[in-house]
Amino acid sequence: MEYNKIKDFISNNDQFAKANGIKLLEVAEGYAKTSMEINDKHLNAANVVHGGAIFTLADFAFAAASNSHNALALAINVSISFLNAAKSGTLYATAREVGRNKKLASYRVDITDEAGIVVAIFQGMVYIKKSSILK
Amino acid sequence: MEYNKIKDFISNNDQFAKANGIKLLEVAEGYAKTSMEINDKHLNAANVVHGGAIFTLADFAFAAASNSHNALALAINVSISFLNAAKSGTLYATAREVGRNKKLASYRVDITDEAGIVVAIFQGMVYIKKSSILK
Amino acid sequence: MEYNKIKDFISNNDQFAKANGIKLLEVAEGYAKTSMEINDKHLNAANVVHGGAIFTLADFAFAAASNSHNALALAINVSISFLNAAKSGTLYATAREVGRNKKLASYRVDITDEAGIVVAIFQGMVYIKKSSILK
Amino acid sequence: MEYNKIKDFISNNDQFAKANGIKLLEVAEGYAKTSMEINDKHLNAANVVHGGAIFTLADFAFAAASNSHNALALAINVSISFLNAAKSGTLYATAREVGRNKKLASYRVDITDEAGIVVAIFQGMVYIKKSSILK
Repeated sequence: MEYNKIKDFISNNDQFAKANGIKLLEVAEGYAKTSMEINDKHLNAANVVHGGAIFTLADFAFAAASNSHNALALAINVSISFLNAAKSGTLYATAREVGRNKKLASYRVDITDEAGIVVAIFQGMVYIKKSSILK
Repeated sequence: MEYNKIKDFISNNDQFAKANGIKLLEVAEGYAKTSMEINDKHLNAANVVHGGAIFTLADFAFAAASNSHNALALAINVSISFLNAAKSGTLYATAREVGRNKKLASYRVDITDEAGIVVAIFQGMVYIKKSSILK
Repeated sequence: MEYNKIKDFISNNDQFAKANGIKLLEVAEGYAKTSMEINDKHLNAANVVHGGAIFTLADFAFAAASNSHNALALAINVSISFLNAAKSGTLYATAREVGRNKKLASYRVDITDEAGIVVAIFQGMVYIKKSSILK
Repeated sequence: MEYNKIKDFISNNDQFAKANGIKLLEVAEGYAKTSMEINDKHLNAANVVHGGAIFTLADFAFAAASNSHNALALAINVSISFLNAAKSGTLYATAREVGRNKKLASYRVDITDEAGIVVAIFQGMVYIKKSSILK
């Protein structure tokens, strides 16, 4: 599989991740890693990183991992637990495939800060379509 | 309770919602409604609205509803199911309190498009701190 | 649709619900209601109703509602939040369809006690197979 | 910590697990493992192991792991994804602590069959009370 082509395609075409400063660092089989350098735009009214920003960071890794097989995969379900608030530095999300059949696949994502502290954990499922990502 | 003051405080101080064009329309007791007019910046690589954008829209309503009592509430857990992809128009999220005790409270959020089609459903829990939102 | 036939089929063939005293009270289109009269066998080591018993009560309503269309539906994802502990009396679970397309459908389930207090809330998704329930 | 005393206390007092043939095999710090030998009583109307039985197996490991510190911990939130149906043999659930602070702690649980195939994955959070398990 041409994981770098998939990485480039997703990196270049995900407008929401781009607009929010979230980068796709790695894509491999059933695996992806993303990062987000925290700035003021990521904060909520309680002055910590918005749940939506943490979710998006994780969801982007989940999307890349689940599309790494070059079959279009759409998120159908996600659960996220927030363990520790984050305020500054860089956050990372690492997505790993747990199971996959023809139509459905499941992933776990860890969201950590620079010190390796777990900020959130994420569990998600995708529905796999017949179309492919790369032409 | 001064719901309009809480609405203004959250609207003015949530940088991530602001940066992504998400508006807080209403706050009442255990209730809030938000909106997002879809533009290109909300799309993912599959050219539909990013799960992170839909989550953020819902999470912002959840945050406003759970903080409507003027006690600082932090999200600890959320599950979201994506039912229909969205591409254009305006999306709305409506959060309603299902239960609340001293330390924990639960909310359900509906995310719909302009035609009332359910785009996603969301279920979340907050942990309630001793500090208040307004001074 | 012959909802009573589906109700009878599920009632008669769900061994786990039967073994745990859980009854299927009603089935209609995208809807079902179940009940469980609490006894000592439903308790956990903290002497309150086991999360597994509450889940099973809700899951049984979810299964009946999602199979009410007479197409085999299998649970793929569930999130449950526990709001109040239960110790005695009868618990009820009411499942309602929120969305349904050819392959996936989503449900919300409320679990309440006799006084109408919300014990737990549940959100679930099924994958729809081509086989039918009734022959 | 006296993990064997906690294991014995939970094993002896969880009526619902006992009634359904679920055994607590191991308890260590933030860790527990349970097993369930499948029989007809665990099946649903589709003739595969009931989601409620799989949930209960996992929830029992989650309860033991989260109570392993000898502080009463109550489940507040769980998400479970079902990856593969199970019909016979023995299922195992392994719970591991991901994070813990004074009031909240998070766990991941893997449910596998005898061949190590992942049947389900589970993510749960507890609220920690001031009382202890052992006297």
